[in-house]
Amino acid sequence: MIDIKAYQKEISAKTDATLEKVLPASDTYPGSIHTLMRYSTFAGGKRIRPCLLMATFDACGGRNNNEEKALLTAAAIEMLHTFSLIHDDLPCMDDDDFRRGKPTAHKAFNEALAVLGGDALCIAAFEILATTGRIDIIKDIASALGTNGMLGGQVVDIESEGKQVTREIVEYIHRKKTAALICVSIRAGAIIAGADPVAIEKLTQFGELIGLSFQVVDDILDEESTTEQLGKDAGSDRENGKATYPSVFGMNESKKYARDLIEKAWKEIEFLGERGEILNKLAEYIVTRIS
Amino acid sequence: MIDIKAYQKEISAKTDATLEKVLPASDTYPGSIHTLMRYSTFAGGKRIRPCLLMATFDACGGRNNNEEKALLTAAAIEMLHTFSLIHDDLPCMDDDDFRRGKPTAHKAFNEALAVLGGDALCIAAFEILATTGRIDIIKDIASALGTNGMLGGQVVDIESEGKQVTREIVEYIHRKKTAALICVSIRAGAIIAGADPVAIEKLTQFGELIGLSFQVVDDILDEESTTEQLGKDAGSDRENGKATYPSVFGMNESKKYARDLIEKAWKEIEFLGERGEILNKLAEYIVTRIS
Repeated sequence: MIDIKAYQKEISAKTDATLEKVLPASDTYPGSIHTLMRYSTFAGGKRIRPCLLMATFDACGGRNNNEEKALLTAAAIEMLHTFSLIHDDLPCMDDDDFRRGKPTAHKAFNEALAVLGGDALCIAAFEILATTGRIDIIKDIASALGTNGMLGGQVVDIESEGKQVTREIVEYIHRKKTAALICVSIRAGAIIAGADPVAIEKLTQFGELIGLSFQVVDDILDEESTTEQLGKDAGSDRENGKATYPSVFGMNESKKYARDLIEKAWKEIEFLGERGEILNKLAEYIVTRIS
Repeated sequence: MIDIKAYQKEISAKTDATLEKVLPASDTYPGSIHTLMRYSTFAGGKRIRPCLLMATFDACGGRNNNEEKALLTAAAIEMLHTFSLIHDDLPCMDDDDFRRGKPTAHKAFNEALAVLGGDALCIAAFEILATTGRIDIIKDIASALGTNGMLGGQVVDIESEGKQVTREIVEYIHRKKTAALICVSIRAGAIIAGADPVAIEKLTQFGELIGLSFQVVDDILDEESTTEQLGKDAGSDRENGKATYPSVFGMNESKKYARDLIEKAWKEIEFLGERGEILNKLAEYIVTRIS
């Protein structure tokens, strides 16, 4: 039996050590932007994407072979995730003051530096990805982030605020805004481990399902938790008129949907047998947050 | 004798045709962000970076061989340049209402979409660069854009506003903010053409010198031109208390410096002989804007 908490702790520590190595020191000139990049990157994220990447990498037999490449890719993805959060929190976007219990970047520094710091994390991530020599993964990640992925989801998210939306729109937003980057993390782990195309395809399906479930759960938590529990403003989705699952389907159906997605996801990776244990547990972790 | 105007026209047309091909159509969902990306990319830029890239590529014997790869790289660099302008114009940054005679992106659309549209151009550029298969160039470009390049220059630029600055700081700002991307355009042209390391090194020197001259000239034009001539607010640097060459050295010395840099640059590429004619003329074009 693998201890999932210990696994998460191990991967978080390795990811953080890699981030520590690749991010410029705070006193490297110009110091303000490097301080901001580190502030937001080390603000207490749970490193879910790196955990999923490394768990997939391990499940596909990668460990002890290319581990450094996998960790660099995991660190780059975490930087890209942080870039998206910094810009998402800006006054002209979601206008959030707190993230993970700490002031958001534009609050702790200023708006101009938050825009540039986000940009810098994005560009530094591509520079790091280039050092791994895997151009196929760079293409995959850029595609998951672009207007047919994360950024497309953010646009529709913002443009749907305060509007009555269909199930299709809510699903589009979350598939793109959240699931795309989670899914590509899993794909990257499989590709670096040298998994065959059939395995990569099944893991991609798995990634999309748990990515979507992750966002449904996030919506539920935003409704049901306190600000203290979340580390960010609770209920802000409803206040902002966001298109969320609970707002469209109600709470009970949303919870059922989140669990159904995870069960479907598990089926996709049955082929991994025992090697899939950590991935199964990470998927379970996503829904246990609401049970 | 090569007609430089005709050359610029040819390369602009080819760059625009490539951009037309790689940018999602305006009606691709979600349409608003794709419309913004095209609005800013086709806002009438002079395509200086693509011209320098292709002229270097031609001078190093690349034409008829890898031309598509060179044009894709040129288009990606133009998208990265556009991304930087969109974010630079934001209210929290330079707060500019006009660019190339047209409303800036956040004015023509809105601020949230301008942030996301800039992000999307940056990410799409890396996706395009990945299709060229040249991971060395991706690394080079990311490095020129990051906090040791363009973004570092922008940070110091903003943080120096309204302050008395030294020659070293003005030079840092412009070397990083402007010269880095111009220089890497030239390097990319040389690398794709298969130039040898000595030639690449000399062309890198050439690129840094003309990149710096380009920014000195830009500062001079901001002081001496009308808003109509510039297509953006004239005198805005002085109003914003920007660290410019004329503000530190005076107008005459700035003009002399811009010319001296070009003359130094010419010496770096003497080795190209007649093949360097277009590059020499492009460099000359930079300073003739102020004579």
